[in-house]
Amino acid sequence: MAETAGGGEDKLSQSTFAPLAAGFAGALGLEDDCAFLTPPAGEDLVLTTDAVAEGVHFFSDDLPADIAWKGLAVNVSDLTAKGARPIAYLLSLAFPERPEQAWLDGFSAGLAEAQAAFGIRLAGGDTDRRPGPLSVTVTAIGSVPQGRMVRRATARAGDLLFVSGTLGDSALGLMLRTDPGRAAELGLDTAGANALLGRYLRPDPPLALASHLISFATAAMDISDGLVKDCGRLARASGLAAAIDGGRLPLSRPAREVLDREPRLLAVVATGGDDYQVLAAVAPDRAEAFRRAAAESGVHVTEIGRLADGAGVTITGLDGRPLALGATGWDHFPP
Amino acid sequence: MAETAGGGEDKLSQSTFAPLAAGFAGALGLEDDCAFLTPPAGEDLVLTTDAVAEGVHFFSDDLPADIAWKGLAVNVSDLTAKGARPIAYLLSLAFPERPEQAWLDGFSAGLAEAQAAFGIRLAGGDTDRRPGPLSVTVTAIGSVPQGRMVRRATARAGDLLFVSGTLGDSALGLMLRTDPGRAAELGLDTAGANALLGRYLRPDPPLALASHLISFATAAMDISDGLVKDCGRLARASGLAAAIDGGRLPLSRPAREVLDREPRLLAVVATGGDDYQVLAAVAPDRAEAFRRAAAESGVHVTEIGRLADGAGVTITGLDGRPLALGATGWDHFPP
Repeated sequence: MAETAGGGEDKLSQSTFAPLAAGFAGALGLEDDCAFLTPPAGEDLVLTTDAVAEGVHFFSDDLPADIAWKGLAVNVSDLTAKGARPIAYLLSLAFPERPEQAWLDGFSAGLAEAQAAFGIRLAGGDTDRRPGPLSVTVTAIGSVPQGRMVRRATARAGDLLFVSGTLGDSALGLMLRTDPGRAAELGLDTAGANALLGRYLRPDPPLALASHLISFATAAMDISDGLVKDCGRLARASGLAAAIDGGRLPLSRPAREVLDREPRLLAVVATGGDDYQVLAAVAPDRAEAFRRAAAESGVHVTEIGRLADGAGVTITGLDGRPLALGATGWDHFPP
Repeated sequence: MAETAGGGEDKLSQSTFAPLAAGFAGALGLEDDCAFLTPPAGEDLVLTTDAVAEGVHFFSDDLPADIAWKGLAVNVSDLTAKGARPIAYLLSLAFPERPEQAWLDGFSAGLAEAQAAFGIRLAGGDTDRRPGPLSVTVTAIGSVPQGRMVRRATARAGDLLFVSGTLGDSALGLMLRTDPGRAAELGLDTAGANALLGRYLRPDPPLALASHLISFATAAMDISDGLVKDCGRLARASGLAAAIDGGRLPLSRPAREVLDREPRLLAVVATGGDDYQVLAAVAPDRAEAFRRAAAESGVHVTEIGRLADGAGVTITGLDGRPLALGATGWDHFPP
């Protein structure tokens, strides 16, 4: 223990990070030990924390601006799926060695972009120097009308399952990232490949959906670990079974091209993760109004299945036949 | 990147951690993606985040219960110094490999003890598996009457400086930990050595002082990086100079015995850190009332110096002569 207790640790650098806190009075310019937050009247606060680490959630050669975006986006995604409006976040950085100022400047620029996109401000945080991968831990705070946070465990039998946006782009992007030759094999043009790669780097949670989830969803959560796994969590928490129609999963143009060429990659779309879209359960008689309200705020939602009494998740392939899911994951893909 | 995105990460284990969230309705038994918090009426929330990591803030052979206590205590210390009453916390754990259940049980037992001592409840969190040291990142939330968070930058020239409890125990404990032979050299008996070692392992912030800081302090912060460094921060933030009388630093019985034997170890007391006591600035005409109110709630506070116009921190030694502080820390100790 070369460093004495408390060594290697400090509040966030004011010169780098104070501009990110400028819009948030309670951050006190990052000059104090704590931030304060005057809660919006009549609202509950919604709290979440998630970390992204080098080698697990991003690559060491990712741009610092992209790492910053992702660290914030994965937390805002949780807030959005709970119906919450983002307010502020705390940032805890761990570096194996002191980062270059250019890296910090890029990181801070990425945070600024993400803050503007998500309507969230930096409230405070700290940095630590310690061995191991660079990691970015964010605690995000949002708000919902009192008692209205959208939960995971409150879906009902008969509810329809909706997802926002398109699925699988990020997982296919990761596949291209780790095996660049695949893009040509799959017949993707440069624009298509870049679109998938970009979705892995910069998840874009559908913030405009939040208020509609409060109005229409019986339950919701974000899809971070893959549709099948996360749908299983929602169904299990609600004491229900889920049936997903794999042929209805919403796909981007390049993802559609990929599946046209290799239909078995539907498994990557359904299980790959890092989507940061919303999975929502909606009563059938509210479904059309939900779809319309979402569309009017610019978010496309797609009905992909249904909840019923029972347990477990089933998903059909593009051919309508069930995909087999083994104890440890996907054992078989349709031929 | 062996793991796919999202791999190696999960919400906190319910079987281990849900009992810690039992008293907090908004934690939803740790079964949801986010927690919610209904803010106390008329209060501001106070937010802080701090991480403790193996090899930096604790030793790899420390008991998991002690690591848990410290991870929570260092955050509650920040809340206390701002006048805040603890409410809830989020916990983000990073393990290089899956921990043994016995380790987790000990860790969870330590959290339970700390929660009871500090009146705080677990609201949520996540665990990550990644290389590097075990690290425990806590985001703690407290509350103060609206607009009353005690700040760092609001002290005034002429204010007296007070500290709570005793200083240096933890830093001396760390010294004994790294060099066990020192206890005998310093003439410490077992009880004395253990008291110092225990203060390093289990900081105990003076929660009962929080409301008195709101009533009496013009500024305050917790002492985590050493009295001199932290006093320098408070003075600088307030645009003032601080003069500390080293002969007045409050000492425990074993710390007093150590300094009787080796007066130069006053530098360890004044700069060693990990005290997790409160440094407060109080106007002279309020000082006696502050001392009395603190004593009535069981917290001993000691006047150790004064703020004045100017800049910088000076501290006198036990002999009343100034201790010399160089650009990079303590250059010289009195003979």
